[in-house]
Formats: sequence, C-alpha cells, structure tokens
Amino acid sequence: MKILKEKILEEGRIYPGSILKVDRFLNHQIDVGLLKVIGEAFYEKYKDKKITKVLTIEASGIAIACAVAAYFGVPVVFAKKNKSLNLGDDVYVSRVSSYTYGREYDATVSCEYLGKDDRVLIVDDFIAIGNAMKGLVEICDQAGAEIVGIGICIEKGFQQGGDDLRKMGYDVTSLVIIDEMGDDGTIKFRDEE
Amino acid sequence: MKILKEKILEEGRIYPGSILKVDRFLNHQIDVGLLKVIGEAFYEKYKDKKITKVLTIEASGIAIACAVAAYFGVPVVFAKKNKSLNLGDDVYVSRVSSYTYGREYDATVSCEYLGKDDRVLIVDDFIAIGNAMKGLVEICDQAGAEIVGIGICIEKGFQQGGDDLRKMGYDVTSLVIIDEMGDDGTIKFRDEE
Repeated sequence: MKILKEKILEEGRIYPGSILKVDRFLNHQIDVGLLKVIGEAFYEKYKDKKITKVLTIEASGIAIACAVAAYFGVPVVFAKKNKSLNLGDDVYVSRVSSYTYGREYDATVSCEYLGKDDRVLIVDDFIAIGNAMKGLVEICDQAGAEIVGIGICIEKGFQQGGDDLRKMGYDVTSLVIIDEMGDDGTIKFRDEE
Repeated sequence: MKILKEKILEEGRIYPGSILKVDRFLNHQIDVGLLKVIGEAFYEKYKDKKITKVLTIEASGIAIACAVAAYFGVPVVFAKKNKSLNLGDDVYVSRVSSYTYGREYDATVSCEYLGKDDRVLIVDDFIAIGNAMKGLVEICDQAGAEIVGIGICIEKGFQQGGDDLRKMGYDVTSLVIIDEMGDDGTIKFRDEE
C-alpha cells in the first residue's frame, strides 16, 4: 500500500535491533485519515467473505479494528492483556510472550463474544515473530470460530510470524511487507504483486 | 443521550459494588454504529473549539477517541499504561491508581505528541472516581496544552470524578449520567438538561 509505505519512510524511525517505531501515526499518535484508508483496504479484500466479527488485541490493534469494522458494519472484539476484575471467568485464554514489552501475558476474550458461528477477520498493526497473532488464532480455535483472514498493516518479512501463519493455511494480507531494515535507517519494502 | 441509555438498559449488566459492565457494546465487544453516534455527539458539542488533538488512555478509550477524532479530522493520542521498551524516555508521566484493575500504573505520553500549542479534547468511556482522567489532565498540564473539554460516555454521578473535574473548572460533557445503581439491576439516569 503506497500511502503506508510513504508514511513509514516519512515518519517512521528505525532503532537498532530492527525496531521500527510508527508511533507518530499508528500506535501512540494515530492519523485517523490513514486509518480510514487502511479500513477500506481490508474491506476491499474481504468484503465478500461474510465477516461477522473483527478481532484484535489491545491496545494498538483497536483503532485499526474499528476502522475496518466500520466498513463491514460488524462488531469489533478485542482481546484483553490484563485481566480486569470485571471480566469474569468464562473466557478463552492464550498465553503470549511479548517481545516489545519484554514479558508474558494472557490474552483473554469473553466466551460470549466469539463462537462457532463467527467468521472472523483478525487484524493488528504489526507482525514480527507473530506471538500475539498466534494467540488470537488459538482463541478463535477455542471458540470454534472460523478465521476467514488475517490482516496486518506492517509485516516484518525478515521475521517468521507472517510466514508461519501462511504455512498454517491462513489467508494473511499484509498492507506493507518490510524485507530489510538497516541500523542506518534504510528500509527495503517487498514489491507488491 | 437516548441511544446510549437504551443500550445500557438492554445490554448493560450490574454487579454488586456498583459495577456496570458495558462490554457487550463499548469496551470489549464494540458496536461501531454506536461509536459513530458518540463521535458525532462530541463533535457537535466542541466543533467550534479549534480542537487539535483528541487525547485518551488505552485501551477502552481508543475506539471512542478515534470515532471522535474522525469528525474533527485531528490526530488521536492515547496514553500508554505499560511502558513499552520502544517508548523512549522523553515522556510525560502521571501515576494512576486503578479501581477496575486493582493496581497502580504510570500513564505516559511521548512529549512529541502533546505541546503548548495543542487544544485538547480528552475522552474516555467511563468516569467514576476519575483517577485515569485526572492523570490525563496532569499530562496536559505537564505539556502546557490547553484542555478545551472532557468528554465521557458514561459518568457514575454517585461517585465524585466528574464533579471533581467540574470544580477544577473543566467543561465536562457526559453523554449519560447514572445517579443510582441497585444491586437488583435497576439504574436511575439523571435527566438531561
């Protein structure tokens, strides 16, 4: 997606260890115009797939999920990372190891909001190793819900998360795939098909 | 706001200790149609106020902030509760004690995204004691940003958070104010002006 590549080049910042910060426009400060374009892109890809829920994980996935779900006219469900005292016990749980936060957490979704009749589009801002996304896949499996597609804004193509999910048979759509990042700030994008 | 009151009566659930769960439509599963109406309501109220940023706190404020900011055409900034390894050191910080999660955390916003030229509309899903909201106010003060208004979807009028902020001189707009909640599931709304 051209606009997202341009935004990454203009406003993204690279830090040693292949860290790409996009918090100027995607996951701390959020460009709502860009969100709308992202939502539309995923809608165009999956509009005929009878999606019933858009699933993501807090926090940075929520904005994207809402933008996508607005096009489909279906609810968003977001997995929680910290168990609220209000959440109750009837939940699907998947243990996730987070690289970004340097800790493990339980991703939880109330059983009420995901079930075997659901056709789910999972979305998130990033995929690298893919642990959070695999947690959401596991939650859908626990619910017996069908995963129709997985939509990612930015895939780090030099890490295995996206390809792991493709090998598992999922239809993964990444708006931008980064094949190389240099500590000098250079980025090499994969050519779009 | 009539539609939000109806939604609370139809889909909200009350638990002992004046806990109101709205996770069927607002902060776990999200009704994107309702979001749009909420966004429009805050826009109507503050559209002449030259808002430059919509500020909220992760996670459940993000969806609402994005819906509001889409009307204003300005960026969302959301405060983080867990310090990401990627966040950097140049941040505003406010210590918040959370009733819902039974713990304390630091609300942080990168200094880059909030400054003295900003005219801020703060939004969140709930206010009860108001600690999270007061944390956001403190962050705006640290930034030297002007708080033009505070928009809340659901205010628990029998707790002091909303009134504390009004006494501090802020223009607080709550779409729904609940004056009483009974353990038997009854809710008494404050009449709208």
